[in-house]
Amino acid sequence: MITREICQRLDAEDALAELRDAFTLNDGEIYLDGNSLGPVSREARRRVLEVLDQQWAHRLVRGWGEGWMAQPTRLGNRVGQLIGAREGEVLVADTLTFLIAKLVGGALDLRPDRHVILTDRANFHSDLYIIEAVARRASRPVTVKVIDRDNLERELNDDVALVELTHVDFRTGEALDLAGITRAVHEVGALMLWDFAHSTGAVPLDVTAANVDFAAGCGYKYLNGGPGAPAFIYVRQEFHGVLENPLPGWLGHARPFEFELAYEAAPGIQAWVTSSPSIIALAALEGALEVFARTSMTALRAKSLALTDLFIDLVNEKLAGVFEVVTPLDHDRRGSQVSLRHGEAYGVVQALIAQGVIGDFRAPDVARFGFAPLYVRFVDVYDAVDRLVDVMSAERYRDPKFRVRNAVT
Amino acid sequence: MITREICQRLDAEDALAELRDAFTLNDGEIYLDGNSLGPVSREARRRVLEVLDQQWAHRLVRGWGEGWMAQPTRLGNRVGQLIGAREGEVLVADTLTFLIAKLVGGALDLRPDRHVILTDRANFHSDLYIIEAVARRASRPVTVKVIDRDNLERELNDDVALVELTHVDFRTGEALDLAGITRAVHEVGALMLWDFAHSTGAVPLDVTAANVDFAAGCGYKYLNGGPGAPAFIYVRQEFHGVLENPLPGWLGHARPFEFELAYEAAPGIQAWVTSSPSIIALAALEGALEVFARTSMTALRAKSLALTDLFIDLVNEKLAGVFEVVTPLDHDRRGSQVSLRHGEAYGVVQALIAQGVIGDFRAPDVARFGFAPLYVRFVDVYDAVDRLVDVMSAERYRDPKFRVRNAVT
Repeated sequence: MITREICQRLDAEDALAELRDAFTLNDGEIYLDGNSLGPVSREARRRVLEVLDQQWAHRLVRGWGEGWMAQPTRLGNRVGQLIGAREGEVLVADTLTFLIAKLVGGALDLRPDRHVILTDRANFHSDLYIIEAVARRASRPVTVKVIDRDNLERELNDDVALVELTHVDFRTGEALDLAGITRAVHEVGALMLWDFAHSTGAVPLDVTAANVDFAAGCGYKYLNGGPGAPAFIYVRQEFHGVLENPLPGWLGHARPFEFELAYEAAPGIQAWVTSSPSIIALAALEGALEVFARTSMTALRAKSLALTDLFIDLVNEKLAGVFEVVTPLDHDRRGSQVSLRHGEAYGVVQALIAQGVIGDFRAPDVARFGFAPLYVRFVDVYDAVDRLVDVMSAERYRDPKFRVRNAVT
Repeated sequence: MITREICQRLDAEDALAELRDAFTLNDGEIYLDGNSLGPVSREARRRVLEVLDQQWAHRLVRGWGEGWMAQPTRLGNRVGQLIGAREGEVLVADTLTFLIAKLVGGALDLRPDRHVILTDRANFHSDLYIIEAVARRASRPVTVKVIDRDNLERELNDDVALVELTHVDFRTGEALDLAGITRAVHEVGALMLWDFAHSTGAVPLDVTAANVDFAAGCGYKYLNGGPGAPAFIYVRQEFHGVLENPLPGWLGHARPFEFELAYEAAPGIQAWVTSSPSIIALAALEGALEVFARTSMTALRAKSLALTDLFIDLVNEKLAGVFEVVTPLDHDRRGSQVSLRHGEAYGVVQALIAQGVIGDFRAPDVARFGFAPLYVRFVDVYDAVDRLVDVMSAERYRDPKFRVRNAVT
């Protein structure tokens, strides 16, 4: 039997425990939704104030020449370290959906004789919508096949231009085989684009070793960059100067301040910048990334697995048969969240929130709990399950006030 | 002769003078570059801190259900008031270049039998680059004709699908005839897209009366939303549900949290949202917009014209023959900036900056000065010209340290 004391001991022995101090969290609240929005850190706040009170206030437009212009590539290199990219392969800018649009459009150019994009019907919906839209507007007929990812290998053939998959399933928390899938895609001559929204900052990634062509991810989940934080794009060096940014803008021009009539892409990853990013938003993300320098993805992954193991074990011990654990038990196939299936998942999540345990609901029937190793404690996991037991045994999820679904959850 | 005392009197009589207190400006510095980046306001700072310290820190992911989700449309309505739009026609999101991409792509759908987009060779370059890119990737042959805008009427014919122009020329400060050009474009059955980057917040606009189809503008110039602030898009009500967002995302879906496989556009302007905007960046812009409620575009325009008139008069009086004033003298054709042409314009601007007068250089030979009526004083104009006289008479622009052009100016 797992006791609260055991969990307290795990926290006491946790080398990462002190990282929690980097963040502002509500007293008494257990925040298991960092896979949706990470919390604010002291350093993110400090950097934003630095922009407001020093750079913008006093340097005004001169800020562009004093660091702002380089911020997308500087932050890109910071994020690049978390995904195993080489220097100059990652850029922070835009939103994830725009970056997917850029990469899908660009990748289609590189496989002009192919007509199929494969993606996963369990993919995050914004990816599906934008891929479909880009394909429909392509200058040649392109079909998007939205498949069951388990059938990927049998769908791969020499008419496939691009495969786009989200590395960790937003609903189930299943992590896909980055290197294996990328290899299989390359074997048929197709290109591979990964969405790392639910991976970066929680799951170690090595895009270089896995020979990944393109990737993108967001800044507001495990990177803690703030609501709607800028996203990042990875373009493997081999494609620099080869793959074209289909949504170009003046800041991706080789000589932006010459105001030339014709577009000429800047060298390297800079070509993927379109226009001025929000410097305030970038500052929050830059501050948020600081904490990653105090640890390693290996250490974070070890704690993340320990947390999700603990949660699964406690649910199995105390709530046997109540939920279906839809997240894989196999470590290699698990992200940093645990998803529980239940017919009343919406009410369960709402009742838990009322008890100070913040998870989220994903339609139609999943209660989703993120375990961000930077700030979630073992004792939080224990207490969360404790409250979940109470919610289930007292049937609090049946309370009428938890049964009307809000548009936003 | 215009004296400093006359200018001081103009400030004393200026009903808008007190609005300057809303902003943080450097003591002793004259900021004439608000047409590139507006200054920080107390309210922008306050709103950002509210997001950091209250909403994000304490409400965390719940913020999305408590106001964040509605922020793009709420701010859109605020900006809409400044351009004469009706409720629900404006949305704040993304960057200007992305919004131009959306509107050009969408507009081409509405004129499927036409093959030409007309734009202005003096247009801002990011517009030219993105229009060219969208046209080149269109699913039918589309030619972008980059013309001299003075020849617009003779280029208009029934093969023109769309005309895109920037309302106030970023280099010369010339304001185009919004209603007249829009009417001429409509007469040949084409659609009209205006870029309001250098107009919004400084020049009164009435998109409803002028029958404008589409427009977009940025948040960081006269709106003072901060470096890289979110942009805004205007889609005339008649096109809602007709014009399709070619870069769709989950937040523009009719039911984003149902996670449906197929995209179905939300009603109204919401369909133009793609994915999560930066809430921190939106907060800064929301705060910055507050000051506009204390005045009117009519009052701002009157002061803007008085400031630019004064600057032109002083330059003519004290620096006759030294510069070519490239900004039109006719009020109807003037934005809120004055541009001076000079072979050594780069050095002139750098020498002025060294004297505490912040303008900017636009290649190849323009010194550009923005007169934001919210915070520029008449005495600032006087002092700026005084220092310009010193720069020219002492030939400070010839100083070798002002002759090497930086990449960023």
